Amino acid sequence: MASVAFAGGGLRLHERLSYPPGMSSASPLASTPEPPYWAVIFTSVREEADDGYGEVADRMEELAVQQPGYLGIESVRAADGSGITISYWATEESLRAWKANAEHRVAQRKGHEGFYKAWVTRVCKVERAYAFELGQES
Amino acid sequence: MASVAFAGGGLRLHERLSYPPGMSSASPLASTPEPPYWAVIFTSVREEADDGYGEVADRMEELAVQQPGYLGIESVRAADGSGITISYWATEESLRAWKANAEHRVAQRKGHEGFYKAWVTRVCKVERAYAFELGQES
Repeated sequence: MASVAFAGGGLRLHERLSYPPGMSSASPLASTPEPPYWAVIFTSVREEADDGYGEVADRMEELAVQQPGYLGIESVRAADGSGITISYWATEESLRAWKANAEHRVAQRKGHEGFYKAWVTRVCKVERAYAFELGQES
Repeated sequence: MASVAFAGGGLRLHERLSYPPGMSSASPLASTPEPPYWAVIFTSVREEADDGYGEVADRMEELAVQQPGYLGIESVRAADGSGITISYWATEESLRAWKANAEHRVAQRKGHEGFYKAWVTRVCKVERAYAFELGQES
């Protein structure tokens, strides 16, 4: 099976990860369904000043979870201010709706004006996924 | 222009990011060409013990850069051990070749055996990209 060989014996995501969708706060790994689905990769470098960034980020995650088609989020920020946040979406329509959400648009504008030194957003279609969890090897 | 409206006034990547491809060590944002291209998202949770992980990770980045079709890498790891590494590839063939690289396969096996509590690998096609860099607004 090609998928098993891919990443050092990794197993297909849906076979192995058992926690429910949207558990991003409890686990750094989003539990997503079998591909295809969509991902928005947001890579950024923060400004030093923390002018309410944490509150806006938390609120955006809270809002995203309520959106139709939301599958999960993965977010990591390092001490140096660089960060990657990936949100997963069932369809291209659902990620477009999230992009157009009014409160999200305000946060996007704030991101443009003050939170970040630089960022890149990439919209992707997830074609394949593999996962590994310790203690779950067969 | 739809792309400008997307992420709070974000501009298309190729118009704005001027540093050369592969500058992942100097900048957390990979400079990638106009989509489409490919991304491999690797989200992971590290084991506490550091049994040579840093050396293997550095060596893998050094190797990846030499692969045909390599476009760049973005990697962030937080203090709690969770991390996201994304490598970008010109074609699906180039990411398959990297996956099959002999030394990379050894590292994948090590990842399976000891470095991580859990990981997910997602192979994606990047459809659109937008970027913002402070001081480059028009």
